[in-house]
Amino acid sequence: MKAENKLENKSIVLKKNTNYKNFPMVPRVVFGRGSFGQLADILLPKRKNSDAPFIFLVDDFFENSDFADRIPWLFNDQIIFISADEEPKTEQVDYLVEKIRADYDELPSGIVGIGGGTLLDLAKAVAIMLGNKGTSDQYQGWDLVQKPSLYHVGVPTISGTGAEVSRTAVLLGPEKKLGINSDFTTYDQVVLDPDLLATVPNEQWFYTGMDCFIHCVESLNGTYLNAFSQSYGEKAYELCKEVFLNDLATEEAEEKLMMASWHGGMSIAYSQVGVAHAMSYGLSYVLGTKHGIGNCLVFQHLEEFYPEGVMLFQQMLHKHQIILPKNVCSNLTEKEMDVMIEVAYSMEALWENALGTSWKEQLSKEKLKSIYQKI
Amino acid sequence: MKAENKLENKSIVLKKNTNYKNFPMVPRVVFGRGSFGQLADILLPKRKNSDAPFIFLVDDFFENSDFADRIPWLFNDQIIFISADEEPKTEQVDYLVEKIRADYDELPSGIVGIGGGTLLDLAKAVAIMLGNKGTSDQYQGWDLVQKPSLYHVGVPTISGTGAEVSRTAVLLGPEKKLGINSDFTTYDQVVLDPDLLATVPNEQWFYTGMDCFIHCVESLNGTYLNAFSQSYGEKAYELCKEVFLNDLATEEAEEKLMMASWHGGMSIAYSQVGVAHAMSYGLSYVLGTKHGIGNCLVFQHLEEFYPEGVMLFQQMLHKHQIILPKNVCSNLTEKEMDVMIEVAYSMEALWENALGTSWKEQLSKEKLKSIYQKI
Repeated sequence: MKAENKLENKSIVLKKNTNYKNFPMVPRVVFGRGSFGQLADILLPKRKNSDAPFIFLVDDFFENSDFADRIPWLFNDQIIFISADEEPKTEQVDYLVEKIRADYDELPSGIVGIGGGTLLDLAKAVAIMLGNKGTSDQYQGWDLVQKPSLYHVGVPTISGTGAEVSRTAVLLGPEKKLGINSDFTTYDQVVLDPDLLATVPNEQWFYTGMDCFIHCVESLNGTYLNAFSQSYGEKAYELCKEVFLNDLATEEAEEKLMMASWHGGMSIAYSQVGVAHAMSYGLSYVLGTKHGIGNCLVFQHLEEFYPEGVMLFQQMLHKHQIILPKNVCSNLTEKEMDVMIEVAYSMEALWENALGTSWKEQLSKEKLKSIYQKI
Repeated sequence: MKAENKLENKSIVLKKNTNYKNFPMVPRVVFGRGSFGQLADILLPKRKNSDAPFIFLVDDFFENSDFADRIPWLFNDQIIFISADEEPKTEQVDYLVEKIRADYDELPSGIVGIGGGTLLDLAKAVAIMLGNKGTSDQYQGWDLVQKPSLYHVGVPTISGTGAEVSRTAVLLGPEKKLGINSDFTTYDQVVLDPDLLATVPNEQWFYTGMDCFIHCVESLNGTYLNAFSQSYGEKAYELCKEVFLNDLATEEAEEKLMMASWHGGMSIAYSQVGVAHAMSYGLSYVLGTKHGIGNCLVFQHLEEFYPEGVMLFQQMLHKHQIILPKNVCSNLTEKEMDVMIEVAYSMEALWENALGTSWKEQLSKEKLKSIYQKI
């Protein structure tokens, strides 16, 4: 009787119009030390024929390394080493797509991205563009991709960005830094092998890990959050605290940061980043600052927005003896500063998530300038 | 330089032969209150034509409810109400498959399971068997399914089993209770609408939630665990503690238990359950005890295996005023008791996970008998 009443009440509530994102998850994932050795077997059934190659896009950090020899290329597969020193660009994607189309008579069997966020986002974008017409800047935005991407596999060799699990490929375009957000962006397969993190330099480990930590602080303190994203975000946040504030053995830290990045990326499904990412986008657009360090440069000055997060971040900086660059914005021209502020200010969803719908009343461009000037 | 040395060292380690499970995740998930209203739109592009129906397998708890009127059937779709009073059986699956084949000239567009673990596992098994030959008991085991299942969608209306995300469909067969574990078992789409939990009766809410809690205790204390499963299991465990030991608002509890079930199900990827599940399988085989309550009946007596978990469980029982049935095993014949012990004892992977490879030395059948006699 009670149940029936409840049902009747509920049926009213349920009639409200809803439209939640039908989120695409990576449909296949393998996790384990040494799992990179399974890549050959994973790719084999996906080879359309011996003329349709796999293209491996690999961080050039691994060029001439023993690791590069372990990449399972066959037939006329191609390994392309790419520098991750700069943020991935739309023109880079278009160049790669043109090159691959010119090199082969038919479309590849798939694309494999091996590296950090830069390589993983490049590989996602290349896989999309090999299935779609035009140039990649035409697809920066939300759900602009109409046709499926090529089969694509992500193999992270550094953890924190969440690029291995997200439905976006963030690119610097001619006019904006913006992701190709689409259901076709997500990887078809991810290989999570914590062994691959062994060669990450200390500073890079820290900055990329902080991408995850800061992103969790922003989403957990945002207005967009729901229980799905909260649960992933909380787990990623806890794992980051363990990794960067406790004294874990190296192997445990590698495994936990790899999972923090994974859960952090998942948490974005129904949440959004906030102040640090908005302002970091400005830095990156004007100065080409890499995403990880850009977030850190901004975040250190955001104690009024994220008091607990910034306090923990300061402890992490100290524990890992990281000295952030100073005077990064001190030589900017007035025009450059204005562009930086405009880029940051234009990230409306991020500000709304951070400060609510009336964010413009709470946030002046002067305020942004004063923060940038501290960096 | 340091990096290169590390790479060289690593290349030795990496040559070890590995074979981790390439785990299938649910490729699409929508989460949100009222998201059930999106089901019609989700199914539409999956309709092969107006003659290829969707078959909705629905817990008969919802027969004649307002909720049933919201199931988006069209054309010659069919809604089949099924009792969840008993554990799902292979013969039930075979009957449903035969009926669906007889009712239509062509294969359905897909199967939608709406209910708890029983309905969700039934729907998974029916989707598999509509794509494969023979009877469902032939597929109980690991990776015996050769051909794809029909497109299938899971809509949980009670949370805890993890059936919405797992790659198994546990069935009572003529000879054993065992899952159809395969890459084709996992749902193609899951709709997580916390509103649907509103009508769950209190006891059922508790027993099903404890399925998740106990499963986390077992996997987190098991020898099979890796960092992937640990991170999911820890989150599910924390959420269960919040739901069953804190005083959450109803809506928050619904959402958190829904996510606990989700993460708990994911944690099984690289872990295994343990003592409670092994012994609960025995109860269920001989007495038909439902999985959720069966786990609780066993788990209360496992303080020597899981001291912290059992202590928290006792607090949860007390807080939610749950009185477990007594003397459940007191009228068993000696033969029935022997069968129960044999079924439990045969779950080798579960015992190995719980107690290590030398589990047989630590666990006598007498010991099992003494625990069953307390129930």
